[in-house]
Amino acid sequence: MDPTCDPSRASFLPVAADSHFPLQNLPWGVVAPTDAAPRCAVRLGDHAIDLAALQAAGLLAVDGLPGGVFARPALNDFMALPTVVRRATRARLSELLGEGCGDLRDAANVRDQAILPLEAVTVHLPVRIGDYTDFYSSREHATNVGIMFRGKDNALMPNWLHLPVGYHGRASSVVKSGTPIRRPRGQMLPPDADTPVYGPCRLLDIELEMGFFTAGPPTQLGSTISVDEADDRIFGLVLVNDWSARDIQKWEYQPLGPFNAKNFATSISSWIVPWEALQPFRATPPAQDPEPLPYLRGEKSANFDIALEVGLTTPAQADAFTVCRSNHKYLYWTPQQQLAHHTVTGCNFNPGDLLASGTISGPDKGSYGSFLELTWRGTEPITLPSGEERKFLQDGDTVAITGWCQGDGYRVGFGEVTGEILPALAG
Amino acid sequence: MDPTCDPSRASFLPVAADSHFPLQNLPWGVVAPTDAAPRCAVRLGDHAIDLAALQAAGLLAVDGLPGGVFARPALNDFMALPTVVRRATRARLSELLGEGCGDLRDAANVRDQAILPLEAVTVHLPVRIGDYTDFYSSREHATNVGIMFRGKDNALMPNWLHLPVGYHGRASSVVKSGTPIRRPRGQMLPPDADTPVYGPCRLLDIELEMGFFTAGPPTQLGSTISVDEADDRIFGLVLVNDWSARDIQKWEYQPLGPFNAKNFATSISSWIVPWEALQPFRATPPAQDPEPLPYLRGEKSANFDIALEVGLTTPAQADAFTVCRSNHKYLYWTPQQQLAHHTVTGCNFNPGDLLASGTISGPDKGSYGSFLELTWRGTEPITLPSGEERKFLQDGDTVAITGWCQGDGYRVGFGEVTGEILPALAG
Repeated sequence: MDPTCDPSRASFLPVAADSHFPLQNLPWGVVAPTDAAPRCAVRLGDHAIDLAALQAAGLLAVDGLPGGVFARPALNDFMALPTVVRRATRARLSELLGEGCGDLRDAANVRDQAILPLEAVTVHLPVRIGDYTDFYSSREHATNVGIMFRGKDNALMPNWLHLPVGYHGRASSVVKSGTPIRRPRGQMLPPDADTPVYGPCRLLDIELEMGFFTAGPPTQLGSTISVDEADDRIFGLVLVNDWSARDIQKWEYQPLGPFNAKNFATSISSWIVPWEALQPFRATPPAQDPEPLPYLRGEKSANFDIALEVGLTTPAQADAFTVCRSNHKYLYWTPQQQLAHHTVTGCNFNPGDLLASGTISGPDKGSYGSFLELTWRGTEPITLPSGEERKFLQDGDTVAITGWCQGDGYRVGFGEVTGEILPALAG
Repeated sequence: MDPTCDPSRASFLPVAADSHFPLQNLPWGVVAPTDAAPRCAVRLGDHAIDLAALQAAGLLAVDGLPGGVFARPALNDFMALPTVVRRATRARLSELLGEGCGDLRDAANVRDQAILPLEAVTVHLPVRIGDYTDFYSSREHATNVGIMFRGKDNALMPNWLHLPVGYHGRASSVVKSGTPIRRPRGQMLPPDADTPVYGPCRLLDIELEMGFFTAGPPTQLGSTISVDEADDRIFGLVLVNDWSARDIQKWEYQPLGPFNAKNFATSISSWIVPWEALQPFRATPPAQDPEPLPYLRGEKSANFDIALEVGLTTPAQADAFTVCRSNHKYLYWTPQQQLAHHTVTGCNFNPGDLLASGTISGPDKGSYGSFLELTWRGTEPITLPSGEERKFLQDGDTVAITGWCQGDGYRVGFGEVTGEILPALAG
C-alpha cells in the first residue's frame, strides 16, 4: 500500500451529483460479468468494483482478510469476519477509490479488470439468507392495520408497546430487485361467505420496509446480543418490499400469524448500504412510553433519517406516480432493539440473516406504506394521473421503492427495489 | 455390481431383534469418525455405513449419482437428486448390506473402512436446513390449546378445518438430539399483572411432533407441488421436539404468532427414516369434514402408523417415566397436504427444508403431546414414581421422544430425540 494515500471524499471515477452511490456509500453486492462466476463487489456511481480482482492484484492487504473471500457468489463469508476486519476493508476501499490515492487509479491493468460498468454485469442477490424475520415496528402501521382487521378497541395489542412484535418469514422466497412477482393463488373467505374459495389473490399489496443483515461470527445457541452490542452485529441495510396477499392473510392469520399471504415473494434492493455509511444520518427514535424493560434499552438505539418513496407505474401510467413518502426515522422499535429482542431467549444468529422492519408508515395518510392503509382497505381508491384508480395492485403494475439519506452535497442511497405483477397462473 | 446379488431381508451384519434400524429401515444421517470430516451415512443396527467410502470403493455405481456426493457434511446435495436416483441408491444399499450379496460382505478392506461402530463416530445434524416450517395439524391439540388460550367458543378458529394452519419457524436453532436445552429468558405477563416482566421462562414445555424433509431439485418461485406430487418430494421423517416457552408465547403471540417462545431450540432425531421405508405403514387419515378444497385432495394423502412415546427422567427419577403415548396416524392434515398448502401460493422449496407436524395429540389424555395439555395448564400435575410432581419442565429434567413402526417381526424406528434442561443463565 502506498503510505502517501490519503482519504478523500471524491473518487477518481466519475459519480453523478445526484447518484445514490458516491464514495461515502460504497455498498456491498454480488455481480457476475458475462460468462463469469458471481463475485463480491462494491458499487461506486455506475460501476461495480470487483473485490476479488482487487484482492488478487494485492491491493486489499487488510489484516485478517482471508484470501479469496470475495471470489464467492455471496457475501456471507466476508460478513462472518470480525467488525474490525470488515471496517478496515471498507476503509481501504474508500482510500483506494479516492482521487488522492494512486494504487488503483494509476494501475491501468487492475482498473481494466476490476472496474466494471454496471451494464456489463448481472447483479445477483448479495447474500445466502439463512433466516428471515419480519417485525412490525411502526406504531402508525400497527395501529392502522389493527383498526381495519380487529376494530379500534383492539388495534394495538396489549404487548405492542412493550416489545417489538415479529414473526419468522420465508427465506427461500427473498428475491432480488427486478424479479417479476407472480400473483399468488390461495385460499380466501369471500365477504359474507361461510366457506372459503380457492383462486387468485384479489387484494395484492406491498409493504414498504427496510431490512438489515447480521454480521460477525455465528453466535452460540443460548447467547444474547444487547442493544448496544447490536451496533457491531449489523452489516448494513436494504430496501424491502414484503408483498402481501391481504385476502389470504385475513383468512389464515389466526392464531399463528401470516403464512401463505407472505411467503410467495419478498423483494430486496441489490446493494447493501453499509452500517458505517449510515452513521451520519442517525435519528433519535420516537419517545417510548412506557419505558421498555432494561434488555430493550441502550444508548446506541437509533433509527436513520432515510427518505423513502413508493412509485407506481401501470401500462397506462408510464411515468412513476409517487403513492407515498415515508422515512425510516418513524419506526417505534429500532433495528438494535429488534435484534436484542430476537436473541433475548438465546436464539442464535448466523452472518447473513435478514431482519426487516415491517411496514414503515408515518403520521399522515401520504406516508402510509401499504395500499391497505393508503386506500383504507380499498374504500378510498387512489386516482392516478392516467385517470386509473387503484385499490390494490393489478396485473402489469410495477412498484419501485427508493430511499436515500441526504448529506451535505451528496446522497447515500439505496437505489431501488422493483417488481412487476404478473397474472396468476391458470389452476 | 455383482449381477447375482439378490435383495434379502436380513443383513450380514448383526442387528438386534428389537432394533429400530434393521435392513428395512436404512435411515440417512451424517457422522464423523474421530479426527475425520463429517460424511453421509446410513445406519444399520449399531453401525454407521460410510457412504463416501462405499462410493470411493466403487460399490455405489448408480446412474446419475455424482461422485463425492456423500463426502460432505450434510445430505442436501444427495437430497437434491431426482427421486429415481435416490431410490436406486437406496435399493443398491439394501442389496449391498443384505446377507445374499458378497460385494461388500466379502470385501474385508472396504468393510474395515466403511462399516463404523456407532460408538466410534460423532453423529451430526444430517441436513443444512434452509427453511423450517411448523404446522398445527392435530385437531385434538388445536382444540385443547384453543380452549385454554381462547376459551371453548373460539377453540378451533374458523379456518382450521379448511386448511393446514402453519407458521414459519427459526431454522438456525434446529439442533440434533442430545443437545442440552438452556431454559430461555424472556418477556412475560404475570397472572393478574398489568405490565410485563423479564426473567427465566417458568412454563417450559415440549411439543411431541414429527417432521419431514423435502427432496428433489429446488422448485421455482411461482410453482406448486400437488398432494400427489408431494410423494416424490418427501425425503423422509424425523422425530421433532418443538420446545416451547408457554408464558412467553401467551404474551407475545398476538397478532403475528409464536416467535421467541419457539426460536430458542427445536430438537430433531439424528437419522432420517426414508419415505420408502415408511410405505408399508401408511394409515388412512381421519375423515375430513368439510371436504377440503380440491388443491388439498389427493389419492396419496396419508399418515403413518408410527407409535410415539415421550419419556421423562429427572435427577430423582432415573428410570424414564412415560408421560404420553401418541401416534402419527392421528394427524388431521397429512404431510402431503401440508406441502401442497405451503406451495399453493408459489412458495419455492429447496432440498433439505423441514416441515413439522405440530404437536401430535390423540383423543384421550394419555395421548396428549405437551405438558400444557397433559397437566391442563398446570392445574392437574403429573405425579412421577419418584413422588415428584410436574406441571412443566424443571431444570435437570431430560425428555426423550421415541417412535417406531411395528412390522411383522421387525421395527422401522426413529431412535430417539433427547434433550436435558439446563438452568437459565444469570441476566
